[in-house]
Amino acid sequence: NRIVTLPGDGIGPEVTAAAVAVLKEVAPNLVFEEHLLGGAAIEATGEPFPQATQDALKGADAVLLGTVGGPQNSPWNSLPRHLRPESGLLQLRKLLGVYANLRPVRVQPGLEHLSPLKPELARGVDILIVRELLGGIYFDQDRKIDGDTAYNTMRYTTPEVERIAKVAFWAAEQRRGRVTSVDKANVLEVSELWRRDVTALQQRDYPRLHLNHEYVDSVAMLIVSDPSRYDVIVTENLFGDILSDLAAVIPGSLGLMPSASLGDGPGLFEPIHGSAPDIAGQGIANPAAAIMSAAMLLRHGLELPHAAAKIDGAVSQALKSHPTRDIGGTAGTEAFTDAVLKALG
Amino acid sequence: NRIVTLPGDGIGPEVTAAAVAVLKEVAPNLVFEEHLLGGAAIEATGEPFPQATQDALKGADAVLLGTVGGPQNSPWNSLPRHLRPESGLLQLRKLLGVYANLRPVRVQPGLEHLSPLKPELARGVDILIVRELLGGIYFDQDRKIDGDTAYNTMRYTTPEVERIAKVAFWAAEQRRGRVTSVDKANVLEVSELWRRDVTALQQRDYPRLHLNHEYVDSVAMLIVSDPSRYDVIVTENLFGDILSDLAAVIPGSLGLMPSASLGDGPGLFEPIHGSAPDIAGQGIANPAAAIMSAAMLLRHGLELPHAAAKIDGAVSQALKSHPTRDIGGTAGTEAFTDAVLKALG
Ligand SMILES: CC(C)[C@H](C(=O)O)[C@@H](O)C(=O)O
Ligand SMILES: CC(C)[C@H](C(=O)O)[C@@H](O)C(=O)O
Repeated sequence: NRIVTLPGDGIGPEVTAAAVAVLKEVAPNLVFEEHLLGGAAIEATGEPFPQATQDALKGADAVLLGTVGGPQNSPWNSLPRHLRPESGLLQLRKLLGVYANLRPVRVQPGLEHLSPLKPELARGVDILIVRELLGGIYFDQDRKIDGDTAYNTMRYTTPEVERIAKVAFWAAEQRRGRVTSVDKANVLEVSELWRRDVTALQQRDYPRLHLNHEYVDSVAMLIVSDPSRYDVIVTENLFGDILSDLAAVIPGSLGLMPSASLGDGPGLFEPIHGSAPDIAGQGIANPAAAIMSAAMLLRHGLELPHAAAKIDGAVSQALKSHPTRDIGGTAGTEAFTDAVLKALG
Repeated sequence: NRIVTLPGDGIGPEVTAAAVAVLKEVAPNLVFEEHLLGGAAIEATGEPFPQATQDALKGADAVLLGTVGGPQNSPWNSLPRHLRPESGLLQLRKLLGVYANLRPVRVQPGLEHLSPLKPELARGVDILIVRELLGGIYFDQDRKIDGDTAYNTMRYTTPEVERIAKVAFWAAEQRRGRVTSVDKANVLEVSELWRRDVTALQQRDYPRLHLNHEYVDSVAMLIVSDPSRYDVIVTENLFGDILSDLAAVIPGSLGLMPSASLGDGPGLFEPIHGSAPDIAGQGIANPAAAIMSAAMLLRHGLELPHAAAKIDGAVSQALKSHPTRDIGGTAGTEAFTDAVLKALG
């Protein structure tokens, strides 16, 4: 199997190297091919998603991404929109056709104290956020800034809603069987369509699953005040961007949060934390999220659930034996990765 | 001065009555006139914002609103969109021209333990969220649901951005002098306009204030993990809806959260909690948010800051001496209101 790695910017290269080391340990037959994306690609080629990277994706079995983007004051951020690092990421998602972003939010037993929430609220939280990743206001062509006025369009079609809802129902079948669909149907027509189509699909094909609908503002409250009420949350692109980042703070460190983006071709796997330019190159970044993303790659990208579970177990152990700085310990990137490798071996 | 009261649905009438009693105590010359809005208006007239209510607003000095909306399974929610209770609220905002929604989020000293956050994070939080209330995706006419596709448009113009940004800067001058403007400028053109115009206004007219820009997904994280970093937050309508509800959970009970919506005419003052149909009519709703909204009415609507401060002080005392059920006490609506009146007298 051929894996394309895109280490990207900031701490991306460090955490990606850690994840690759772990993958090599559990799946020695994988072949890795490294390419440029984001700021690193801009420096080398002038473009955030160069042709060579695009070509390399053809025939790949999965893509392992580090992080993309520079510091706030980076010159990359003053480039025209389509040449900025984030634009490379959006183009990559589009080219791969990964319409379903899966973000598990799990509080590791024994690590409740890391949460900004009271431990009794954080304990046992286990949510899967399913975010639509290729539609809505992010990609709609009807957008413009012109003098004193600007607009973007939040548009969805029934096929787009159905394909993401299917992913949520499929995931719920393997979990606790409950799906919360999030919208703003009391105000938006696009949410009315969303709610109608999700409901129809559930009644037709998933009658045994439990589906409810909540407004995005209400979910923003309840995910903090009562996170245990959620199993699978499914929502559109922009709401999903906000809610998945919000939910990601519950476990207490972004360094613990992996993600998978799936479509009909190769999947894209990446830690959700940013490029953290302030600590890049110091060997102190927590690679746990990248390593857990590698586990998602094995599970969802290559259908190797057994190897994936081994990695997740080893990460849990290493978090206890060699905690990194973001979770109150002292282990650096290398020491943590070694601990994971040892736990695997 | 003439105040129009719109008690609305659910617990709205109970908490509005409490707020009116308190207003009568501190400002005996106010004249009150009660009218219908929301579900109550639908029942009586078939419309959520009847003509009689609209007429009553002419020449009013301020509007005191209770809450609007029924339970999830209410027949009101199956009416055509423009006849639902929420629609009445949106039409009311529009008719009054209240483009600036002010939502103070303050953790009362001694009540940190109510927060879902760890007490050390909740302590001292004092944020003012300024939400644009009449523009963006809520009101844009370019919206449609048609067969298998639907869309809404998030549009802003420079004058709309400038008038809300001015309110934020004005508020910051009376607070700690820091404004965080929230957008999604790495993806949306409408946010690019927003950021550009807010920046230009600050450089031109408010050079002594500190302005920074953050992405909405990032703010959703930081408001939970580090709420003390914020002073004034200003943002567009939809982001403001989500973020202001999110921030509202920090003090631990929605029963403590007032709001003011301001424009060029009479202001609209309302508690942010919902209509809570499950506890309506039982005399147990916490009227603190409605009473604090009445204080905002005196401060921002009638320029009676002294009377407003007296009410806020009395509410703080009553929360300690007669805590309501939502904050772990046993006082009912009447007992709490009496405690406020006593503290005032
Ligand atoms: C960088 C940005 C374009 C991206 C998004 O909003 O999708 C990021 O916030 C994310 O969630 O992966
Ligand atoms: C009821 C709804 C239309 C309203 C909104 O979204 O503005 C509410 O959520 C609010 O924030 O006042």
